[in-house]
Amino acid sequence: MKILVLNCGSSSIKYKLFDMTSGNVMAQGGIEKIGLPGAFLKLTDKNGKKVILEKDIPEHQAGIQFILSVLTDDTYGCIKDYKEIDAVGHRVVHGGEKFASSVLLTKEVLDKVVECSELAPLHNPANLKGIAAMEALIPGIPQVGVFDTAFHQTMPAKAYMYGLPYELYQKYGIRRYGFHGTSHRYVSKRACEILGVKYEDQKIITAHVGNGGSIAAIMNGKCIDTSMGLTPTEGLLMGTRCGDVDPGAIPFIMEKEGLDAAGLSDLINKKSGVAGLVGGSSDMRDLEAAVEKGDERAIMTLDVYNYRIKKYIGAYAAAMNGCDILVWTGGVGENQWETRRVVCQDMEYMGMKIDVEKNKGMRGEEMVISTPDSKVTVMVVPTDEEYMIASDTLEILSNK
Amino acid sequence: MKILVLNCGSSSIKYKLFDMTSGNVMAQGGIEKIGLPGAFLKLTDKNGKKVILEKDIPEHQAGIQFILSVLTDDTYGCIKDYKEIDAVGHRVVHGGEKFASSVLLTKEVLDKVVECSELAPLHNPANLKGIAAMEALIPGIPQVGVFDTAFHQTMPAKAYMYGLPYELYQKYGIRRYGFHGTSHRYVSKRACEILGVKYEDQKIITAHVGNGGSIAAIMNGKCIDTSMGLTPTEGLLMGTRCGDVDPGAIPFIMEKEGLDAAGLSDLINKKSGVAGLVGGSSDMRDLEAAVEKGDERAIMTLDVYNYRIKKYIGAYAAAMNGCDILVWTGGVGENQWETRRVVCQDMEYMGMKIDVEKNKGMRGEEMVISTPDSKVTVMVVPTDEEYMIASDTLEILSNK
Repeated sequence: MKILVLNCGSSSIKYKLFDMTSGNVMAQGGIEKIGLPGAFLKLTDKNGKKVILEKDIPEHQAGIQFILSVLTDDTYGCIKDYKEIDAVGHRVVHGGEKFASSVLLTKEVLDKVVECSELAPLHNPANLKGIAAMEALIPGIPQVGVFDTAFHQTMPAKAYMYGLPYELYQKYGIRRYGFHGTSHRYVSKRACEILGVKYEDQKIITAHVGNGGSIAAIMNGKCIDTSMGLTPTEGLLMGTRCGDVDPGAIPFIMEKEGLDAAGLSDLINKKSGVAGLVGGSSDMRDLEAAVEKGDERAIMTLDVYNYRIKKYIGAYAAAMNGCDILVWTGGVGENQWETRRVVCQDMEYMGMKIDVEKNKGMRGEEMVISTPDSKVTVMVVPTDEEYMIASDTLEILSNK
Repeated sequence: MKILVLNCGSSSIKYKLFDMTSGNVMAQGGIEKIGLPGAFLKLTDKNGKKVILEKDIPEHQAGIQFILSVLTDDTYGCIKDYKEIDAVGHRVVHGGEKFASSVLLTKEVLDKVVECSELAPLHNPANLKGIAAMEALIPGIPQVGVFDTAFHQTMPAKAYMYGLPYELYQKYGIRRYGFHGTSHRYVSKRACEILGVKYEDQKIITAHVGNGGSIAAIMNGKCIDTSMGLTPTEGLLMGTRCGDVDPGAIPFIMEKEGLDAAGLSDLINKKSGVAGLVGGSSDMRDLEAAVEKGDERAIMTLDVYNYRIKKYIGAYAAAMNGCDILVWTGGVGENQWETRRVVCQDMEYMGMKIDVEKNKGMRGEEMVISTPDSKVTVMVVPTDEEYMIASDTLEILSNK
C-alpha cells in the first residue's frame, strides 16, 4: 500500500510518499513559490542529498503534476507509474466543529470543508485546491482529509468557550478550536507506545513548541484543552505571533497606532512574538545565539517564551489533577534542551524531576529525560504529522 | 488619629472614616450620580441602618463637601469639626511604572499621577478630582495615594511583558500592570497574620473574585504575576468583561460585526463575561440561581468561570514551584462556596485538599477551609481595601 501525503499551502506543497507495508518513506520533498517567479521543487534523493529542480509552476495542479512526474522520474523517482499510488492523505487545517476525526473526502465532505474556509481563509482554500488537483490528475483516487483541529474536538465547553457574547459563537463559530492536532495526537500516542502504557489511562501534556507552538492537555485519551484558539495566534509566544495578550490592550493599541482590523491582524501575527520582542529575527536559533552572547533583550524574550510554556503546563496539570507524561516536540521541543531544562526545573511540587545531564545537549531523539523517581515522565518525541496522516488514510481505506 | 478614606469614581465617591487608634470604622457611605439627576448620599447610621440623603451634587468638590457636612452633622455625624480629620487616603487606580508603593501626594507626585491617566482614562482623572477637591476644602491636609497597581510592580519582566513589538512598551507603556493590588496585599498579609507564619517565606496565591476578578501569585512577600493586564479586561471571566481571548479572534470579530476600536472596547468590556455568555444578568447571584434551576447556558457559564480560576491557580503554582496558601476573597471568593469547592477539588496533585463540610455554606468569615493534612492551606479572608488604605496613610504620616 503506497500513500502520498500532501500538505498544500497557498504557494507551497509538501509531499511524502509512504510504503505503508514497511512504514518507510519512499520519497519526500516540496514545491515553493507556486504562481511566483523562481518556483522550484526541492527533494531529498536516495542518498539523502538535497536536489533543487526549477520549473514554472503557475498553480497547484501543475505543481502536483510535477510532483507525480518526479516520483516516476528515472533519476529521482521511486515508482514506475503514478497509478501505483493507492491513496492520498491531505493535511486540512480547519475542520471547525464539523470534523472530529479524519475522513474520506467525498463530495459531501468537501462541501463541509468549504464551509469551514471562513475560519481559515488562508489555509482551507489551498488545501481544497490540492484535493481538486489530485482528483483531476488521478480521477477516482481515494483521498482522505486529516484536520489540524479534529483531535481537539473532544474539549469540553468550559475549555472552548470564550467569555464573549454567546451570539458570536452561534453566528460565526467563534470558540477555541486548537491546531497542531495531528502532532499532539501522534506524539501522545507514540509516548504511550514507547512507555508501554495504556493511552486511555494517562494524563498527558504535549508541548509542541517551535516557531509556532501549542500545548495540549490529553486526559484518558481525549484532548481536554489546548493553548491555540479560534486562530493560531493565541497561547504561547511564537516566532512572529503574540500569543496571549490583554484583550483590553487591543483597542488601546489600535487607537494609538491608528490601526484598523487588518493592520491589527498584521501586527499581532507578523510583527509580534519573538521577532517583535527582541526586535530582530523570529528564528529561535538566532535567539539562542543572542542569549549566549548575553544580549539583555534576547534573554528577556527567551524568559517570556519559556515562562509561558511553564504556566500552561501548570494550568493543564490543574485541569487534570496532575500529569503522568509530559511530551516535548516541535523544533524547539525536540532540540532546544535549555528551554526544556528551564521549564521542567523547579516543578517538584507536581512531582516532576528532569535528569539535567540526560537532557543536556539531547536533540531530536525519542528519549525519557526525567529521573526514575519523577512522578511525571518527561519525554522528547520527534513529531511525524505526515506519518500520522498516512496512517489515518490507511486505516480509513481498510475500514471502507 | 482619624483618617478619611476616599474612592472617587467618575460619578461616585465612596468614603470611610477610621479611628486608627482603635482601628474602628467611625462612619461610612457613598455618593452616587454626581452631575446627574437624582444624586444622593447613602450612609450606614450608628444603628447599622441605611439612610439615603438626596441632594443636588454637580461635581466632586460639592460631593466631598456634602460628605464632610454629614460627618459633622448632629444626626448622622461622628465628629464635631472636620478639622478632626488628620489625613485622607485615596484609592488611585493606575500608578503605571511610577509607583511601587503608597505615597504622600505632593505637587510632584500629582504630576506623575496625571501622567498615568492615559493608562486609566476613566479612573485616574476622577481620583485626581477628589484629591484636588479635598485640598480646596481643607487646605494643607496630608493626603496619601494608594495605587491599585503598586503591589504588582515587583513582577519580573517575563510576567509583565506581552509578546508585542517592544516599541509599544517603550512608546506607550503597554505591559501587564495588574489591579486589585491593595486587596491582594491585604488578604495575603492578613492570611499570614492569622496563620502566624512569616509573610516573606510563603508562596501565596490570592483569588480576588467577584464581578471583577484577578488572581495573584505572591512569592516571598512579592507579587510575581497577576491575571489582569494593561487593563482590567484580561484574565478571568468577569461580570461583563471577557477575560482571556484569542487575540487573533479580535480582527475576525471586528470585521464580521463592523466594529471600530471603540465598538470593540464596548463589546469586550460591557457586553461580554458572564452577562454575554449567559445572555442575561452579570450578577453572580443570578447566575447561581439559574444554575440551581438547571439552566444549561448558566451551568456552562459557571463552568467557564470556575475553570479559569482553576487554571490560573495551576499556572501560578507552576510559576512558584508550589503553593503554601490559597486565599479566597471578593464577592464570590468570600461567599460563593460552591465555586471554592469546584476549583479546589481534584487538586491533590499539588497537595491541596479542601474540607468540603467546613467550606459548605460558609460566607464572609476569616476561616481555613482545607483539611489539616492539606499541603496548601486554603483560606477565606474577606478583603478590606479601605482599611489597607487607612493603614498605609497612617504609616506614611508616622514616617514623615
